[in-house]
Amino acid sequence: MPEITEAAEAQDHLKLKEDEQLDDLQNGFFIIQGRKNFRYGMDAVLLADFARAGTDEKVLDLGTGTGIVPVLLAARGKGAHITGLEIQERSADMAERSVAYNHLEEKINIVRGDMREAASIFGAASFDVVTCNPPYMIGGHGLTNPDPALAAARHEICGTFRDFAAVTEKLLVPHGRFYLIHRPFRLAEIMDTLREFHLEPKRMRLVYPFIDREPNLVLLEACRGGNARLTVEKPLIVYREAGIFTDEIRAIYGDGR
Amino acid sequence: MPEITEAAEAQDHLKLKEDEQLDDLQNGFFIIQGRKNFRYGMDAVLLADFARAGTDEKVLDLGTGTGIVPVLLAARGKGAHITGLEIQERSADMAERSVAYNHLEEKINIVRGDMREAASIFGAASFDVVTCNPPYMIGGHGLTNPDPALAAARHEICGTFRDFAAVTEKLLVPHGRFYLIHRPFRLAEIMDTLREFHLEPKRMRLVYPFIDREPNLVLLEACRGGNARLTVEKPLIVYREAGIFTDEIRAIYGDGR
Repeated sequence: MPEITEAAEAQDHLKLKEDEQLDDLQNGFFIIQGRKNFRYGMDAVLLADFARAGTDEKVLDLGTGTGIVPVLLAARGKGAHITGLEIQERSADMAERSVAYNHLEEKINIVRGDMREAASIFGAASFDVVTCNPPYMIGGHGLTNPDPALAAARHEICGTFRDFAAVTEKLLVPHGRFYLIHRPFRLAEIMDTLREFHLEPKRMRLVYPFIDREPNLVLLEACRGGNARLTVEKPLIVYREAGIFTDEIRAIYGDGR
Repeated sequence: MPEITEAAEAQDHLKLKEDEQLDDLQNGFFIIQGRKNFRYGMDAVLLADFARAGTDEKVLDLGTGTGIVPVLLAARGKGAHITGLEIQERSADMAERSVAYNHLEEKINIVRGDMREAASIFGAASFDVVTCNPPYMIGGHGLTNPDPALAAARHEICGTFRDFAAVTEKLLVPHGRFYLIHRPFRLAEIMDTLREFHLEPKRMRLVYPFIDREPNLVLLEACRGGNARLTVEKPLIVYREAGIFTDEIRAIYGDGR
């Protein structure tokens, strides 16, 4: 029964912990996630789709978590090499095992460290592209998860948006690009902060759950040292009707198959 | 033939010049405009619809042109009193005659003057609401109309967006509101400038000509001294298909009937 042997080998190779599982990204790649927590959301998929990275470009994903953004970028053929920086051991460990399981060791490496120290870890101007799916909530606002790793994914505990922008300015080459996804309610502050660190917003797309609803996500591309001219793209609508994705969302999920 | 007498009287009252005409706003009010130039666009209608002004609030429209925004605000029952400030004699004269023709002298007054000097003309903190449909193009960019009045409507000749924001901060009472419409390509710079003058963006709506196109206008509400939290509203789509307005646009044009 070769299937069992193979599965057992995979299991062994994966070193899956009790509360972990292997999820199929439906594009030929897989991700190790928690069964309940440490799970990627649509924002990671939208960010990986929105980000542009040439096959000769070095990419850094700040606060990579379980490494979902690097794996999705690699699945889309984006970037020559992708580094994922993660401070939480638990997430970094899952990310490393996912990279190995997908045989992406040549393409992706996971580094443990504090994103606020990324410029000294990697050196100034060492990346062409930085991606980031930061915590959306301001530290101290609202309910904070008692698990510090989970809390850090939602709340600005391990760094504020200002910290992300400040370090990204240092990490990017001149005219390097910063891709991020965030909540629209913080858009004015985000644009202001990006410009303060000479990261000029160049491209923006709002994600509306339904065509007649307020957007709940915003995708941004900023260029280090770019001139002041923003392109706002057509709206990205998630659902055609309750429970039914639009063709565009289905295409985004299907990309890289 | 009383109709002719009435028309002649109206004509006399209007003092219509050769290249001017009286246009029906389809809401019980009229506007004097040029036949070819000095004509209002959809942006004025969208701004008057987007702006909120209580019946006890004093409103100032900066660079009012032919007075279209004050007349549309009045038609919608917005504001206790509306002042239109205009530097161009030609436009201010049309605006005054439109106010008179609509019997709005009690509600609207037109003041001739430079918007950069508005704080000394009216005094600090003298308005609850400021509205503005500013020139969209940066001075010196692209083709500039040889007619100085027409050029000033499109290009930042009589003041930059910075000037508008700087004077608005002075003119507004604490927590007074600034309503403007502009081009999305300048959004990052606009938000940055508003925040520099403590005019916090609070509400934003993007205007998309079609659902699958880039937006070509953005409506903004900023609050003097407001906290950093922006509401991005559902998309405003103009055309359902080529030449056919959406129901919402038809409702906006029909408002105040």
